[in-house]
Amino acid sequence: MEVEIKFRVNLEEVRKKIEALGAKFVREEIQEDLYFALPSKQLLRIRKIVNLNEVILGYKQIKDERNEEFDEIEVKVEDFEKMRIILRRLGFKEDVWVKKHRYVYKFGNVTFELNRVEKLGDFLDIEILADNIQEAKNRIWETARALGLSETDVEPRLYQEMTRELPKYVQKK
Amino acid sequence: MEVEIKFRVNLEEVRKKIEALGAKFVREEIQEDLYFALPSKQLLRIRKIVNLNEVILGYKQIKDERNEEFDEIEVKVEDFEKMRIILRRLGFKEDVWVKKHRYVYKFGNVTFELNRVEKLGDFLDIEILADNIQEAKNRIWETARALGLSETDVEPRLYQEMTRELPKYVQKK
Repeated sequence: MEVEIKFRVNLEEVRKKIEALGAKFVREEIQEDLYFALPSKQLLRIRKIVNLNEVILGYKQIKDERNEEFDEIEVKVEDFEKMRIILRRLGFKEDVWVKKHRYVYKFGNVTFELNRVEKLGDFLDIEILADNIQEAKNRIWETARALGLSETDVEPRLYQEMTRELPKYVQKK
Repeated sequence: MEVEIKFRVNLEEVRKKIEALGAKFVREEIQEDLYFALPSKQLLRIRKIVNLNEVILGYKQIKDERNEEFDEIEVKVEDFEKMRIILRRLGFKEDVWVKKHRYVYKFGNVTFELNRVEKLGDFLDIEILADNIQEAKNRIWETARALGLSETDVEPRLYQEMTRELPKYVQKK
């Protein structure tokens, strides 16, 4: 299970704190995600990692009410446009694009995904892959507090949802 | 457009004739295809090319009544089982497996796919990628006649259909 909590942050400030914790910088990704419209509690997207020249098809099931617990499967595919056409022909409708610049840090079993998301702002996803969900959440909160983050900084909405809530003329820009 | 006519053949006999035509051997593939149940006139499969360690997701639309004209999109994927789980979770039902040993030959713009298909027998698919369908069919028939094949050797059913028509206990073996 992927356990993840999303916080609204100031990217530069929180980056310094993450580095001060001793977390290791892993990689930078420029991600362009195309989401398809699926029944709620399910996500389907094709992710283009522009700077690494990778394409990943991802499917997630959301397991809780706060969008913190995910069952995720990802598979690399060779070509974004071909995958997009196959999904369209299979009847899936395109929903929204989410584009972000991501900086990934690791500290033990904790992954920090520091995201500058176009049109939405800066976010930090703190993530742990774990079977014991409560233990993972405790560890995430311990880490979050060490970064000065609290319950009021939590953003429970998915990037896909936040984008969908933008005015149409902003979405399309 | 993929234009293709399938003939029931004796593999060793027709292979000699293909080679005698001057066609060039291109590659050998051991294919294990998992087909999903889709409305008719559409095919969805994950193909494992065992000997080349490749996995390809393929989607086809059938454009005619004789299963000779296809609009095909294929994309390489990294992992068979992950792709399979994603399709299952998206609601697609597995239909049948088709396993075959394929020898590919090329002669100009004509591709010969000589297939020994488990449980079904030996087949030759003669294929041309073309926009002008009638011209492609003429060329396929010209080539087929040069190999001694005639209308009575044509097998209009898809491998997926032929497999589905086998008794269940044979399908599962």
